[in-house]
Amino acid sequence: MRRVPRVIDASTALLTDHYEITMLQAALRSGTAHRRAVFEVFARRLPDGRRYGVVAGTGRLLDAVENFRFGPDELASLAKAGIDRPTIDWLADYRFTGSVDGYAEGETYVPNSPLLTVEASFAEAVLLETLVLSILNFDSAVAAAASRMTCASSGRPCIEMGSRRAHEQAAVAAARAAYVAGFAATSNLEAARRHGIPSTGTSAHAFTLLHDTEEQAFAAQVAALGPGTTLLVDTYDVAQGVRNAVAAAGRALGAVRLDSGDLVTQARETRALLDELGADQTRIIVTSDLDEYAIAGLAAAPVDGYGVGTSLVTGSGAPTAGLVYKLVAREDSSGELRPVEKRSLNKTSRGGRKWAARRYGDDGHTSEEVVGIGYDVPAGETGRPLLVPLVRGGEVVGREPLADARDRHARSLAELPVEAHALSRGEPALPTTFE
Amino acid sequence: MRRVPRVIDASTALLTDHYEITMLQAALRSGTAHRRAVFEVFARRLPDGRRYGVVAGTGRLLDAVENFRFGPDELASLAKAGIDRPTIDWLADYRFTGSVDGYAEGETYVPNSPLLTVEASFAEAVLLETLVLSILNFDSAVAAAASRMTCASSGRPCIEMGSRRAHEQAAVAAARAAYVAGFAATSNLEAARRHGIPSTGTSAHAFTLLHDTEEQAFAAQVAALGPGTTLLVDTYDVAQGVRNAVAAAGRALGAVRLDSGDLVTQARETRALLDELGADQTRIIVTSDLDEYAIAGLAAAPVDGYGVGTSLVTGSGAPTAGLVYKLVAREDSSGELRPVEKRSLNKTSRGGRKWAARRYGDDGHTSEEVVGIGYDVPAGETGRPLLVPLVRGGEVVGREPLADARDRHARSLAELPVEAHALSRGEPALPTTFE
Repeated sequence: MRRVPRVIDASTALLTDHYEITMLQAALRSGTAHRRAVFEVFARRLPDGRRYGVVAGTGRLLDAVENFRFGPDELASLAKAGIDRPTIDWLADYRFTGSVDGYAEGETYVPNSPLLTVEASFAEAVLLETLVLSILNFDSAVAAAASRMTCASSGRPCIEMGSRRAHEQAAVAAARAAYVAGFAATSNLEAARRHGIPSTGTSAHAFTLLHDTEEQAFAAQVAALGPGTTLLVDTYDVAQGVRNAVAAAGRALGAVRLDSGDLVTQARETRALLDELGADQTRIIVTSDLDEYAIAGLAAAPVDGYGVGTSLVTGSGAPTAGLVYKLVAREDSSGELRPVEKRSLNKTSRGGRKWAARRYGDDGHTSEEVVGIGYDVPAGETGRPLLVPLVRGGEVVGREPLADARDRHARSLAELPVEAHALSRGEPALPTTFE
Repeated sequence: MRRVPRVIDASTALLTDHYEITMLQAALRSGTAHRRAVFEVFARRLPDGRRYGVVAGTGRLLDAVENFRFGPDELASLAKAGIDRPTIDWLADYRFTGSVDGYAEGETYVPNSPLLTVEASFAEAVLLETLVLSILNFDSAVAAAASRMTCASSGRPCIEMGSRRAHEQAAVAAARAAYVAGFAATSNLEAARRHGIPSTGTSAHAFTLLHDTEEQAFAAQVAALGPGTTLLVDTYDVAQGVRNAVAAAGRALGAVRLDSGDLVTQARETRALLDELGADQTRIIVTSDLDEYAIAGLAAAPVDGYGVGTSLVTGSGAPTAGLVYKLVAREDSSGELRPVEKRSLNKTSRGGRKWAARRYGDDGHTSEEVVGIGYDVPAGETGRPLLVPLVRGGEVVGREPLADARDRHARSLAELPVEAHALSRGEPALPTTFE
């Protein structure tokens, strides 16, 4: 794959739960730290009624793994937290030297899909648990919501504008995940810089209120941004706002934005008024607490684009993907790699390192996910293999441009059975067969 | 207040929505950019049935405002996004020179509480919208959930362990917000380093599975971490796990952790077994998808501490506080500061710069929040003033140790009417009177 530069270079080593370091300390002491181990990331279930999940954050994760190094600051902090000297010395030299395979970014998934496999010594692999899960859980939650929204919008562009309703760095990741799942643009400037996502935005109610009249505000905006700008018309009275907008920008007015009230009615009235005023090319953008259901509800309204905020960045009811990172195999005292699984009530896991493939039905759609034990998809398996190499011998080999993940998501989604696109609650889009 | 060092020094200037920069561009051109303006942060409502909110993130916000500077990288990115030269030149010299007042961190709030007031030129103040909201919305959402959990735990310690279910940087902020709202510790190592919060953790199921037997795993952990450690006893069979734990650590075993199944029953059985084995000082820590209701449901069970993850970092059903940043006053063309308010359907705001105070009833509890227009609480107002100076002339004056916010929250919560502590859905704990 092409070489793409890394984005952030700060150490990620302390974005970790304390228990990973104490486990390391105990395993170093007991001599088990160097046992070869396989950890697997999977979802036990999808959020309430969802039909598929979307892998996102993989590119960010590869950067974060490369930056998982303990410098003097990090080590001093661990010493202060009571970690012993041998462990700190071991961490000073830490770099991940193992391998990571995973579903490529943008791929859809179902429960028990083996989304990521980390194989290394126990010591090396156990340390990555929290970082892996933080990134994949957040980004995948946003991407899953975004994917439903872009399905519901039937080709009309969706714009991500939820930064204000998410942690300031999570906002950047949310914009990225939404882009993977088909959003057209973001309001977030750091996402534009860091990830090359198109950014967009024009004005808020505050800009109108700043001026003595709406007419003055619109004139100022058009003077600075040209008639192709988007004017926000609902600060006072919508119909008057639309008249003022067309008066300010002329029939070349790019768009008007509606941010309150009943959007279906307002969009219809606004469309009629714009047409009456000769602004028949002016688009109507709607915002205001949209989610996938509201977007679907606007399908028959004359709307040209959706700005989505809160619901997107909070995963539309599922703010985390609920992925877990579980030990599924490890070397035993005789040096053999053996499957392991816990038997805790309501939280079982399935042992063994796994391959996965997606089979196709006669209609060209995927029909089934097949999962088996082993490193490679068996000869004769006709399904599309799902795991790709991401890290080999500690070196990142799976970095790719963000556009590739976006394209992959579109393909993977289009291949799912058509029921997958339904917004209603249902079963996972694909059954999983364990071979 | 005491001087406390800043935590992160990277520029925060692009953690911003594109439209803030286009508004600036238009206002610079129309000559309105330098009008004095007052923006206010408030909640239109509390999340579904909640009785109070909790201000959190203020300390992080003050750091972020100091780091809101546009360097060559940020400016180049804006030029690429189409921002014009005069705006970029203006931003190159940007620093916030205005004033910020706010409810102090940890304070409780109700709808329409004027939580933060930013007064500066329109240009300076409009740019802070997204950053202010991102920080306060996320941190306050987590703190509000955390506060309900610490109420429900009736003095038993709550430990934050949700990092894996939140964006990796949001996780650090979540640990901080939870600490403000009464959590005793966090699993997040970066929160320990960055904010000085006690961190804690011992082991996961993977550590047990790494070893050939549970006995070997427990022996290894006790050898490394001492008998006072917490042993996770539900990897295989809980009762056998408890026996193995006491066999490994003796009666001095610090704690056992239960992470699955019906926790009420398991806690009772485990307590009985520990007592029978003579480990009557050994504590029982429970984890496993706890929220405030599950914690309350364990009140009568012999549990000594709660580890809380997903539900905490996702705000227990309300992952964002829903705070907004609205222009409430601005200078007009004659130079006078005038209240402004939009009249959008279902999204009105109340114009004017505000003071706020909390009045007390005869029982010593707060009885009412009073809000009025003006810079200062009027002479004769007996209520406790709620807004404190945070920034003056661009200089941070409101930085404080995190422990102060934590103490303040405990006081503010104790002062609310007792109904505020109910977990059931209800009205806001205090009525608001506009004077």
